[in-house]
Amino acid sequence: MTTTRVPQEERTRAMRQRLMDATVELLVEKGFGGTTTTLVSERAGVSRGAQLHHFPTKNDLVVAAVGHLTAIRGSDLEAAAAKLPAGRGRTEAVMQMLGDHFASPVFTAALELWVAARTDPGLHEAVAPLEQHVGRETHRLTVELLGVDEAQPGVRELVQATLDLVRGLGLANTLGDDARRRRRILTEWARTLDAALHPADPQGEDG
Amino acid sequence: MTTTRVPQEERTRAMRQRLMDATVELLVEKGFGGTTTTLVSERAGVSRGAQLHHFPTKNDLVVAAVGHLTAIRGSDLEAAAAKLPAGRGRTEAVMQMLGDHFASPVFTAALELWVAARTDPGLHEAVAPLEQHVGRETHRLTVELLGVDEAQPGVRELVQATLDLVRGLGLANTLGDDARRRRRILTEWARTLDAALHPADPQGEDG
Repeated sequence: MTTTRVPQEERTRAMRQRLMDATVELLVEKGFGGTTTTLVSERAGVSRGAQLHHFPTKNDLVVAAVGHLTAIRGSDLEAAAAKLPAGRGRTEAVMQMLGDHFASPVFTAALELWVAARTDPGLHEAVAPLEQHVGRETHRLTVELLGVDEAQPGVRELVQATLDLVRGLGLANTLGDDARRRRRILTEWARTLDAALHPADPQGEDG
Repeated sequence: MTTTRVPQEERTRAMRQRLMDATVELLVEKGFGGTTTTLVSERAGVSRGAQLHHFPTKNDLVVAAVGHLTAIRGSDLEAAAAKLPAGRGRTEAVMQMLGDHFASPVFTAALELWVAARTDPGLHEAVAPLEQHVGRETHRLTVELLGVDEAQPGVRELVQATLDLVRGLGLANTLGDDARRRRRILTEWARTLDAALHPADPQGEDG
């Protein structure tokens, strides 16, 4: 076994990363109420002392995890978007990709934070602006992926409706696996959206 | 002041009702984590002893509140449905009614219970079947209010999509008042739904 000298800054960064990952995992497994600083340091393999030095309270940990989660959500979406097919069937592929994203553990962790933030002003202050940022970025990405023009009447609202629909499907999914129902609904919504967004083109091609 | 003899059974029923109402109010104000049996008995004006006799633990109280909340949600929806206009504009009125229902405090209380139930098997056992029941009833009511035929291809999925959309809008609303955005989205959704459900009738009349 060889020992590599890792700069202090790099080790600190890696440790904070492990603490954030552990926090997100515990939010998914045990919910906001069941996530404790003790469990996080155990899961991350970080000493209590080191953990308390970086994040003295549960709120410090959770607020940092909100930012971490926002970054994961953004990169997950961008990675999924890069794999989408072009042309025919693209609208449906975009819908299913969004549906899968909002049914993933990162959505579940975010849901725990939203609901906790609703009645916790300190957490709300951290969650609300990042959530608005994620919302705007997801909207921008969806418009781009669908290749639609928001200057056309109704287009902006239909994109927003799509994102609220997948958010609702994500919430339904947390009470039980809902994948088959979700896929059927999104297939039909893709068909309806194509008819509404591209009325002159019944095949729903983007060009 | 006259004293009226109220039968014991009736007094017990009224006390349980006050405890349930207090539980739902506290779920909205303080969230699941902040709702304690002490706060519930204070809010309901019921002695600790009487409260503990009827509901020994927080879970007993909350599980009973799930049933209470289900009944309130059903009767709120039926009452709102009875006020809807007929003919032109009905689809939009149905959409706005559903949107308002899913943005109301009863939805917020239900959301707290769903999220808590996700990581609490005892609560999940109580919440999941009642939530399925509410889901089926809301679906049935929406089909009836829209006057659509689920035997037609795609209709069932579009009704489900509508309910997932208003659920998603309800969730968005808990992080900040979202009424204007919600109304705009539902106006556009109603237009799209009318075009998809009544393709031969551009005015969206039900008859």
